[in-house]
Parts: sequence; C-alpha cells; structure tokens
Amino acid sequence: MFVLEYEDDIIVVDCGVAFPHEEQPGIDLVLPDIAYLRQNRNRVRAIFITHGHEDHIGSLPYLLPDINVPLYATKLTLGLISVILEERGLLKSAELIEFDPDSDEKLTAGVFTVEPFRVCHSIPDAVGFGITTPVGLIVHTGDFKFDDTPIDGRTTDYAKLDVFRNRGVRLLISDCVHIESGGSTPSERIVGETYEQIFAESNGRIIIATFASLIARIQQIIDTAALFDRKVATLGRSLENNVRVAMELGYLTDSGRVLVDSKEAAQLPDNKVVYIVTGSQGEPMAVLSRIAKGDHREVSVHEGDTVIVSATPIPGNETSVFRIINQLFRSGAEVIYSARALVHVSGHASRDELGRMLDLVQPRDVVPFHGEHRHMALYADLAMEHGLTSDHVHFAEIGDVIEISNDNVVIEKRVDSGYVYVDGISVGAVGDVVIRDRRALSSEGILMVVVSVDRETGIIVAGPEILTRGFVHAKESNDLLEATKSHLRDTLSEYTNGHQTDDWGYLSRQLRDTTAQFLYKETRRRPMILPMVMEV
Amino acid sequence: MFVLEYEDDIIVVDCGVAFPHEEQPGIDLVLPDIAYLRQNRNRVRAIFITHGHEDHIGSLPYLLPDINVPLYATKLTLGLISVILEERGLLKSAELIEFDPDSDEKLTAGVFTVEPFRVCHSIPDAVGFGITTPVGLIVHTGDFKFDDTPIDGRTTDYAKLDVFRNRGVRLLISDCVHIESGGSTPSERIVGETYEQIFAESNGRIIIATFASLIARIQQIIDTAALFDRKVATLGRSLENNVRVAMELGYLTDSGRVLVDSKEAAQLPDNKVVYIVTGSQGEPMAVLSRIAKGDHREVSVHEGDTVIVSATPIPGNETSVFRIINQLFRSGAEVIYSARALVHVSGHASRDELGRMLDLVQPRDVVPFHGEHRHMALYADLAMEHGLTSDHVHFAEIGDVIEISNDNVVIEKRVDSGYVYVDGISVGAVGDVVIRDRRALSSEGILMVVVSVDRETGIIVAGPEILTRGFVHAKESNDLLEATKSHLRDTLSEYTNGHQTDDWGYLSRQLRDTTAQFLYKETRRRPMILPMVMEV
Repeated sequence: MFVLEYEDDIIVVDCGVAFPHEEQPGIDLVLPDIAYLRQNRNRVRAIFITHGHEDHIGSLPYLLPDINVPLYATKLTLGLISVILEERGLLKSAELIEFDPDSDEKLTAGVFTVEPFRVCHSIPDAVGFGITTPVGLIVHTGDFKFDDTPIDGRTTDYAKLDVFRNRGVRLLISDCVHIESGGSTPSERIVGETYEQIFAESNGRIIIATFASLIARIQQIIDTAALFDRKVATLGRSLENNVRVAMELGYLTDSGRVLVDSKEAAQLPDNKVVYIVTGSQGEPMAVLSRIAKGDHREVSVHEGDTVIVSATPIPGNETSVFRIINQLFRSGAEVIYSARALVHVSGHASRDELGRMLDLVQPRDVVPFHGEHRHMALYADLAMEHGLTSDHVHFAEIGDVIEISNDNVVIEKRVDSGYVYVDGISVGAVGDVVIRDRRALSSEGILMVVVSVDRETGIIVAGPEILTRGFVHAKESNDLLEATKSHLRDTLSEYTNGHQTDDWGYLSRQLRDTTAQFLYKETRRRPMILPMVMEV
Repeated sequence: MFVLEYEDDIIVVDCGVAFPHEEQPGIDLVLPDIAYLRQNRNRVRAIFITHGHEDHIGSLPYLLPDINVPLYATKLTLGLISVILEERGLLKSAELIEFDPDSDEKLTAGVFTVEPFRVCHSIPDAVGFGITTPVGLIVHTGDFKFDDTPIDGRTTDYAKLDVFRNRGVRLLISDCVHIESGGSTPSERIVGETYEQIFAESNGRIIIATFASLIARIQQIIDTAALFDRKVATLGRSLENNVRVAMELGYLTDSGRVLVDSKEAAQLPDNKVVYIVTGSQGEPMAVLSRIAKGDHREVSVHEGDTVIVSATPIPGNETSVFRIINQLFRSGAEVIYSARALVHVSGHASRDELGRMLDLVQPRDVVPFHGEHRHMALYADLAMEHGLTSDHVHFAEIGDVIEISNDNVVIEKRVDSGYVYVDGISVGAVGDVVIRDRRALSSEGILMVVVSVDRETGIIVAGPEILTRGFVHAKESNDLLEATKSHLRDTLSEYTNGHQTDDWGYLSRQLRDTTAQFLYKETRRRPMILPMVMEV
C-alpha cells in the first residue's frame, strides 16, 4: 500500500494482504495497519488499484468500512474486488469506478491527476500509474514485466512511458522483487509450449496446480486441452470464482467448449480430463494437498496420471510443496514441477527489464518497492548502472515517509504502521506478544503449576499439581514431574513456615522460579511456566 | 545409515544425524532409531564410515556406548569422529581403525569383504564401498560427485569402479539427492575463481560464511587470501575444530602463513582481513546470524565490508538465510550470495554424473539413497535411460528391508525404525506426541481452566480461574476471558446442583468441552484446553 499526500489531499495506491510466514503461526492473514489513514479519514480522496492479486486488493474489505472513498480499477480488477466485497456484504456501499487504461482519460482526486498505463503481469488488466503532483510526475509501475508476446495480446504501454519521460519524471516507484534473476523473464507463452509437450505424452488424467489468479495460464490450459480433445474442470473456490468472473467479463474464452464441472469430468475417461486445482504453494487445506494425501472427495491420483505443479514455491513453502510432490510420486503419478520443466514463469521483471524501465522513464529519483532489502540493494546497483547517482536512489521501509520536494527526496519521519493479524474472526486481537508466546510454546512447551492456599492461614491445602504440554511426554516422563512436585513441596513448605502471608504474588513467583530452575537443571530446557495460586 | 546383514553377521555403513526441520520445533538433533541394532547387538561386526559430515557420523556418540565394534574410516574422517567422541568422553573406549582407500587392502567383517574407493565430495577423504557379500558385490557410492579438478587433486577412483564392473555388480546403492539439476556439478575450483574476482574488488573486510566441513573451500579461501595479502581468522566452534584437525592431519596447508586468531585479526586494517564464519544456513546461534544482528562480540559489519554467503539455503532455511542477508545489506555491507555469483557448488552428482556412475558400474539392480521420494522417482527414469528395467530399480524408505538373493531383489518387511529426538539433554523423552502438541500450541495457543472443589460436598469453592498463552492477549482480551468464566460458572452451577458427586473426571471434561464450545463460538479458534480440578 502506497499513500500519497499533499496538503489536504491523500490518495491510496493498492490495499493488499500478506500471507503469514512460518514465524507467524496460526495467523490467517496479515493486514497493513491503517491507523494513519483512519486518523486522516476526511482527507482521503480515492483509492487506486493496480491489479487484482490478493496482495494488492485483499485488505479492501477491512479498509472500506472505515474509509469509503471512490475506488478506481480496471474492469477485471473490479470484478475480482467485487467478489471479495460481496462476501463481506460491502459491495452495495462501495463506490467502484472502472477506468480504461487504453484511453487517454485522466482521473483526478484532490490535487492529484492519475493516468493509468497498461503493464504485463501474471494477471490480465494490470496497470501502473502516472501520478501528476504539485512537485512533479510520479510513475508507479505496479507489479510488471515486459512480455512482448502476452497471451491477451496486450503489452506494457511503451507509448505512455515515452510520454511520461518527455514530460520529465520526478520519481519512479519500481517493482524490484525479481531482480535476482538476470536477463529477462520469459513470456508466459513458454508455459503453454511446455503444456503442449506434456499433454502430448500423457495418457492418463492431467492435474495442474497453479495460482487462481493466473488467468493467462488458465487460458493456455483451456486452449491446450481443446487441442488435445480434453475437457477441463476447476477445483478450489478461489479458482472457480476467478474463472467465473473472468469468463463473465470476457477475459477468458472457451471457444472449444472444454470447461465442464467436476461431476461431468468424473464421468469421462482419464485421457479426456484436465483438472485445474488450487494449492500450488502447498497450502494444507487446498485441493492439491488433499489430493496428495488421498482425502479429496472427487479426485484421487494413481499410476498413469500426470500432475503439473505450475508454480515455484515461495521461500518458506518449499518443505510443504516438496512433501506434496513426494506424496504424489508415491501414489504412482508422474509429477512435473519447476525443477523438471518450464511449467512456470514469473510475472515480475528480471534485472534487464528493470533496467529497461529505468531507461524508458529516466526518473530523477527512484524508490524500489515490493522487495526485501536485498532486492532494493541490488536495484540500487542497477539504477547506478543506468545513470542515477546513489543519492537519487531511496530505500523506504513500511511506515517511512518519503518527502518529495522540487529539489530533493528525503526519507523522513515514520508514521504509525506495521501489521494487524487476522486470527479466526478476530482482527487485531492477536499481536506480537501472542505470536512470541506461540513461538516459545512451540519450541519449549508449557508447564502449569497450581496450588490451593487457605486464604486465612496462607497454608497450602492442595497441590502443587502440574499440567504440561509440548515439553516432555507427561506419561513417559512421570518421574520427572513427580520429582518436580516433591522438590516444590520442600521449597514451599519453607515458604509457608517462613512467613504466613497472603502475598500470593510472591508465592506464585516462587512457584515459577523454583520450577524453572529445577527443570533447567534436570533437562537443560526452559519450558514456559505458568504458576497459579487458588485462594480457598 | 545402511545395515547389511547375512546370517550371523551385520555391518553398519554410516551413522549420521538429521537436523530438525521447522515442523520439529525445539528439537536439537534427530537420530536414527537403532532399536534393531540393539536387539542384534552381538551380531554387529563393524561400522564403516564414508566421510566426515555430521549426517554420516553425528550419531556415533549415541550408537557406540551400546554397540562398541571396530569403526573403519579414512584418516580425516577418523580425525573428525575423534573430535565428537572426545567431547562425550568416548574416545578411549572406541576402536578406531584407519584405512587407506588408495591401497588395495580389503577389510573383512564377518562374511563381508569391504573395499573402499575414493569419491569426490564437499569434504576430503570421502569414499564409497565395494562390499562383497555371499550374494554378490554391492557398490555403495557414499555421497559423491565427479570432480576432475578437485582441490586436493584426488579424483573419484575410476579404476576401482572398472574393477567392480568387471567382477559384476549385484547392486548399486547410489546417491541421488542432486538429480534435479541437469548436466554435471561444477568443480569446487569454480568457487575459488569467484573468490579471486570478489577479493580483487574488495577494499574492506571480507567475511565468508560456509560449512565448517568444506575443507576444500577453506583451503581456497586461505590460498586466495595469501594471493591478496590478507590474513584469515575463523569464527565458530565447529569451524575451528575442523580447521585444527585438518591442519594437524595435513588436509589443509597454510604455506602463506595467513591463518591468525581473531584477536590478531581485530588489530589489522580492514583490507588485510578475511573472516571465515559459521552460520551459512541461517542458524540463529551461529556467528553469521550474530554478526548480522550486531551482537557478535568480536566482529560487526559496516559500510565497505563484503560478506560472502558461500552456500545455498537448504529448503526450509531460506527465510532465515534471507533475513540475515537483508540485515547485512541494511548495515551497509556488500553481500554476495548464490543468487548473485557462483560462490557455492554442490558436493553431489548432478543428473549426468549419476548416469555416468551407472555406466561405470553397470549394476544388475539399483537402490537410490540420500534423496526424497521425488529424487528417487527421477533416478528411476535415469536408470531406465541407462539400460535398467523398472523391476531392477528399488525404492527403500527408512526401515525397509531390501532382501537380495541371487535371482532377485525385493523390498521386504520393515524393522523397528524411525527417529529419536534429542531435546536438551534428553534423548527420546520428546516423541511425536510432544511434537504434535508443540505444533498445535504454536498455531492455536493454550488455555488452562482450574476449579477447586470441596472433596466432601463436591461444591466448587474457588474458580474457575483461567490462564492462557498464545491464544489471545490476556490483558487486551480480558472481556472474552471474563465472559468465558461467567459462562462456565453458569454451566458448572447446574452441574454441582445436578449431581453432587466426586466424579472429577466428569467435571473436568465439562470444563474442557464447555470452554472449547464457548471459545469456538466467540472466536472460531480451537486453543488447546487443559482443565484441572483441585480437591480441597
């Protein structure tokens, strides 16, 4: 999410979710903290969306109830946004405005004039924005690549980029996430060619896992299936939604009439079927994972089937993706994945394309985005190879304020920002403390020590009792737990003999520390210890 | 670990540890379950080790106390084994026997005759074994690659492989883990050439993180440092141990006298120093991670320093490795890692080399090892390209018994096997149940509900009290917890009015289920719930 601000006017570019990594256990979604926008609600003029990926639209259902301003996007993007707003009953109240990036229309919001321009990405109808501000023209690339043979025939809009360059670009905000791969990202079309080879050699069912938003790839699967006289069924809610919307809006064409529902597909001979399924990132609840585990109600793989994992695992997902691939091999299927064939290409520009964008736009200053710090650092090298000096390349982290004046660009003070976790139905109830606890629990386990004390005499009338999980196996380690109890009894008797007080705080600290020290001595582990004193 | 058995004789090949993956939280080491060997202790004749990597020698300290038989290995491997046995006070009691793979000596253990042969790998003095058995010759490759320009000048022993082929190989047990990369693995020498380029461009300190066992790479660092008139200091216990042993045994040479201790290095100007450090896999406690976090007592990085991460992250480690790389970039250092330059090559054979091994040995049957199922599946395809039929390729999982007769090879019944976890100082106290609990705790958190009841009347005299961690933030979610308590009070009062019994089992089930249902309704989460009834 980018927020542009000038005096009384604020506009927002994109509003996505992040997906939790393994160090955010139990979290369903990660939202941007929009505290700052809430505080300045009345100055927000509009929201502009570059494309329909979750990490660019996913937070809208959480933002719009607070900040209901006009929302501008292309046709397909609005279609996908409508789906997620509908689910939350927010569609009626939202003010969705479609724009056509192929026209020359200029969108205005406060002092800002926004000119969308087409870019190629792994979803159709993606754009970047030329944003005219009182301090000059800012070009935001959105997520992009240069694909000169795109499936939908729509290339990145070089003409508009030329226009921008001729006007003079004050600041380029550029995608940089794929800079580690040199050269240029192959065209999405390559994947279709690989599909053709695989389809030609397959005599059983073909199951293809890919991202639900990869409309272009779904189109290629449909076309290849038609070529080989196979029907295509989709499995997985997000996939079914996206296909439905893309069909309705004309971004998917099924001239061969190959799309069927899964019931119908189940009736067909193996060599007449293609399934497109969700779960290419190893998501445990998604279709591919359930098929691999053999607990999907409609599809189970067997000898002769071909499974194509048409994605590369995002770092952190490798283990689960490879586990699924192993399971599929075990079930006798032929499994094709990115290490074996070109079944996936990125939607992001590689190094040379990023350089090409710099040459096309020739900005005075540049801010790389959508990457980790290492990507930004590599982007800085690249920018210098393309004629910028280091003082014109600026790294911004979440919450940083990039202050742009006519003479210079400085990364300024930070605003309230960060992450908000969605956990079950709660938004924000789980914060970093809870996450830290979860990590501690998972590595050391927990142990609870309870005593009941007489509220008059302060004498312990019951306990200590111990409950433990994730530390040692309670049954098998009975001796250890008994030893801990008796050690506690000794120490506590001293205490209760010592001073008969009602300082339960002191008593529970005693419980905690005594237990911790004893267990560390015995096991060299530090389980989380929760003491409890019950007054009776 | 491979166990070969014929009538009364058992020999063991390798005895390694695995490192816990993210789904084994809190675990320090993963050992093979040696129950079967214990049961057959008196039939075990000897242990043969292929090379000195942790995943091939690491379990010896846990095995030898039970099964103290002659242990055969090359000089360097024995040196490294001695270090870990010494630490456990097991060195004296161990019977270590060195062999020279360049001689023609045959080692005998029971009915087995073992002929070691040199292979190239990412550690010197690595071997495979030709094992003559009553049912024919078995060739075990160990971990290998074909490096025709190895740093130590010792190539894989083609001559012995020819001899084996001419005798006829009943079974080939082949490394297969690197089969996903086509072609051949580059020579380790390539890395040295990359070092030279990087050293030539660096004016600050150079910090290189690599595997402690990569003696060949350490040699190249020493040589390159000498070339550029820099001193070299090692940081990290395993690294210091390995370098010491390798120097003593003559596997590392420092003709340029560049090795210094870190104190001395600290006195030198930045452009005169190279640090070799541990932690190339992002291990949080290792040197590289501490340097990146800025809490290493001797070394901190700054602008002008060059950090080389001379390894590729093992799947599962990417996130932590990349976090470190990001931190290093932030501190202003130039960071070179595998995505940017050829600073690492594998020690394992790529597809073509694996095929070459098949051609050299021409086995009747083959069992791929050291890979996941997907690697074995790809290896099967390869084996067929090299003239084997599918019925001569056998996949074995841990615990499988491969029964080899003159006529055929069958994967037979399984023996007791699996993993034993080392957790703190306990070996085996933490099992799969505890691991499952740790995973549950980390995704849902835990909540403890306690009541005290009068053992006479069965009436609740104190509580319910609630303690929770990793579920919701106790302070911020006070309302939720209070609501839970009062909901419990209502339900329980029914209970205590209902039947005044001393069936505390029933009461605690009530506590658990009532709490679970209430919280699921309120939050759609299922924290682990521990009920406790205190009798007073």
